[in-house]
Amino acid sequence: MQEKTVNYKAVVEYDGSRYQGWQKQGNTENTIQAKIENVLSIMAEQRIEIHGSGRTDAGVHARGQVFNFHLPQEISPADIRNYLNHYLPDDIRVLEISTVTPRFHSRLSAVRKTYSYQIKMKNKRSVFERKYQYAVEQRLDIESMKTAATGLCGLHDFKSFCGNKHMKKSTTRIIESIEITSTEDLLTITVVANGFLQNMMRILVGTLVEVGQGQRNQNSMQRILEEKNRQSAGFMAPAHGLTLMSVDYK
Amino acid sequence: MQEKTVNYKAVVEYDGSRYQGWQKQGNTENTIQAKIENVLSIMAEQRIEIHGSGRTDAGVHARGQVFNFHLPQEISPADIRNYLNHYLPDDIRVLEISTVTPRFHSRLSAVRKTYSYQIKMKNKRSVFERKYQYAVEQRLDIESMKTAATGLCGLHDFKSFCGNKHMKKSTTRIIESIEITSTEDLLTITVVANGFLQNMMRILVGTLVEVGQGQRNQNSMQRILEEKNRQSAGFMAPAHGLTLMSVDYK
Repeated sequence: MQEKTVNYKAVVEYDGSRYQGWQKQGNTENTIQAKIENVLSIMAEQRIEIHGSGRTDAGVHARGQVFNFHLPQEISPADIRNYLNHYLPDDIRVLEISTVTPRFHSRLSAVRKTYSYQIKMKNKRSVFERKYQYAVEQRLDIESMKTAATGLCGLHDFKSFCGNKHMKKSTTRIIESIEITSTEDLLTITVVANGFLQNMMRILVGTLVEVGQGQRNQNSMQRILEEKNRQSAGFMAPAHGLTLMSVDYK
Repeated sequence: MQEKTVNYKAVVEYDGSRYQGWQKQGNTENTIQAKIENVLSIMAEQRIEIHGSGRTDAGVHARGQVFNFHLPQEISPADIRNYLNHYLPDDIRVLEISTVTPRFHSRLSAVRKTYSYQIKMKNKRSVFERKYQYAVEQRLDIESMKTAATGLCGLHDFKSFCGNKHMKKSTTRIIESIEITSTEDLLTITVVANGFLQNMMRILVGTLVEVGQGQRNQNSMQRILEEKNRQSAGFMAPAHGLTLMSVDYK
């Protein structure tokens, strides 16, 4: 059976505003995964399951989420993409589809992910970006945020930055880089890591925002990491500022 | 009475997707004008009317629409702006407010307006820009669109580009410039004129798109203008690609 199926890798972008996140949960149809599976299943005339590279929370966006799925027979990737884009709602769009080796799994094969978070300072939110930027009142102290970010890079146990209290698996991850850039009143925090724990990016951003507001010392990251306690880290930044930019494979 | 009032000029941006245009129409509350008047009237504890620089169609956006209004006593512009932004829906945002001379009228005093239209070619619409860009299947021939645009610049009777068949006033306008720029698959048409007739910008864009698709000759603009007939010009491009960028005053 398995030998005869064809494995496809897809890259998808979505505006997460309307959805309860990526992952299907029980009977919840209002997830990106459910929307895509429904269209694929009609196309294939049988129930098709897709495997995402990871969940994104309700309200989080993606410019390069990856998923894979198996079909019983080969269909041209361009035809699948066109079919999906024709029937999917206009806030979900498949960018590319390709056939991959049977062993490829979008989550297990991933080696690196990039998330980006946008903050509009001095409350100067634009109506056109309101669903993609978190507006804060103040101008943040970017230099101290950069210093704090340095303290988070590298291999660490990120238990303090994990939103799942009952996480039983390893909470160790490697953050390759945290880039903080600003143009006028827009601050962008881009984090590259070998993996992200639940809510990790949003707690990390919330903690850095507290540093930028002067509420938290820029040199306190090591202590937060060592305490391995969610209470030691900052607040969880809102979902709508966050976008999954890309997932890398070997 | 009039002498005692204070005249205010406001610049506002809005995402027009949810609205039936700028202008109040009978009992229609779902217009940008009505939303702003309602909040201002609550603030002033009396009915306040605002005067827009012109109407924008249902679904059209603005980055710099201008309106003016009179208040019976002086309130600090910053306070009015903060009040409006606090109570207006998050797809309408007042950018600035200032006091102006009693004679200032946002429509009558305007000397120039700039509209911008965005077209995504090869149907490569992005989910994040879907409400602000018109997606077309083909790659358009930009050079012939630029040639056609040249034929529309200057002082002309734009009756062929007017959506109002019963227009009794002059349909003569001066187009100062039409700039067509493209980056990858995004085409932007920016038109500066001393005034725009009803639907003029959308009919102008539709006509240029037909030129870009090879359906219409790049040298036919003079004939279209001379015929003074709406049927001679092209289709009306959809509202959602259009944004009122700015209104200039002396």
